[in-house]
Amino acid sequence: MTQETLNRIRKFTEDRDWDQFHSPSNLAKSIVIEAAELLECFQWDDEKFDEEHVKEELADVMVYCQHLADKLGLDPDEIINKKMDKNEAKYPVEKAKGSNKKYTEL
Amino acid sequence: MTQETLNRIRKFTEDRDWDQFHSPSNLAKSIVIEAAELLECFQWDDEKFDEEHVKEELADVMVYCQHLADKLGLDPDEIINKKMDKNEAKYPVEKAKGSNKKYTEL
Amino acid sequence: MTQETLNRIRKFTEDRDWDQFHSPSNLAKSIVIEAAELLECFQWDDEKFDEEHVKEELADVMVYCQHLADKLGLDPDEIINKKMDKNEAKYPVEKAKGSNKKYTEL
Amino acid sequence: MTQETLNRIRKFTEDRDWDQFHSPSNLAKSIVIEAAELLECFQWDDEKFDEEHVKEELADVMVYCQHLADKLGLDPDEIINKKMDKNEAKYPVEKAKGSNKKYTEL
Repeated sequence: MTQETLNRIRKFTEDRDWDQFHSPSNLAKSIVIEAAELLECFQWDDEKFDEEHVKEELADVMVYCQHLADKLGLDPDEIINKKMDKNEAKYPVEKAKGSNKKYTEL
Repeated sequence: MTQETLNRIRKFTEDRDWDQFHSPSNLAKSIVIEAAELLECFQWDDEKFDEEHVKEELADVMVYCQHLADKLGLDPDEIINKKMDKNEAKYPVEKAKGSNKKYTEL
Repeated sequence: MTQETLNRIRKFTEDRDWDQFHSPSNLAKSIVIEAAELLECFQWDDEKFDEEHVKEELADVMVYCQHLADKLGLDPDEIINKKMDKNEAKYPVEKAKGSNKKYTEL
Repeated sequence: MTQETLNRIRKFTEDRDWDQFHSPSNLAKSIVIEAAELLECFQWDDEKFDEEHVKEELADVMVYCQHLADKLGLDPDEIINKKMDKNEAKYPVEKAKGSNKKYTEL
């Protein structure tokens, strides 16, 4: 995300004085709610979907993720890389290649 | 997200030959599933939560969002800014300031 | 649900003194969390799934739904029939038959 | 649920020829989607909520749970009791009483 986009997201909240509603718990709820709206694009059909609608709902999820990162003072790159360390260890290439099994079953 | 992080996310999938499982629909399911794991950090208590656990689950949501953007060839900045245009119109500052009402009720 | 099952669900909570955690909001979170665990059974494959696992997760969703109904003093039959009145009006047979469109698009 | 309510739910689907859309996977998605709409009633406020709206969304979750049980030929009482056996073992009264810890932490 560019700094400009990031600034816009933060300014949106600030201008509306919405930080008061942005508790971590409320933001976590919001992420699930928007994620389910994204899933609704695929509710009855996995193949045919309205791409414009998907874009909007995906954007909403991403924006709330950024709000939560901001609220907790987290750097997305840092937490993602830390989690990727774990994922790489949980799913070693030689075991996981071409398999959709959960790590507990590999 | 830095280009380095982005590359790492993409390489993770590529190395494991997992692109075959990354249909838009499956990724949308995955985003909700991880979002609900994030919410689980706040299931019984809104205030006390395990921040390390929150970081991991938030990272998972962000990674799957990036996978979906990649799958559909979307630029996060572009879709976010397009959605912010809409959000700013739906929630004009003078009406929305300090209110947690949905735009349909403003 | 038989009265016996209902009694068992209620006794489970009572014996553990868990009513204190069962705010409507926490129960709503719990329903989503369990629903996402149910969805996880279908994360990468819509056709092949572990039916025993599906049964367990579906049961969890149903139990939390009953907890929420209990918390708010609701009768499932009553709220379901009231909602079915609405659904039948939103999706008239002659328009909705064989279609998976949302009522807003019918 | 009374037999009458059950019949009404089944007839609703049958009359609209919607069984074709009711794959287990699509129903699991639908349960999460409706559960998230229920959660939306508590998105920004845990205490103040629109009870009529909660009733409708809870009813929707319950109806989709019944559809999934029907699709897989499951008896809700049976799967719930089987899961309660597990839950009672995972959360023994003497350990779990008054605690909101997950069984893995008890």
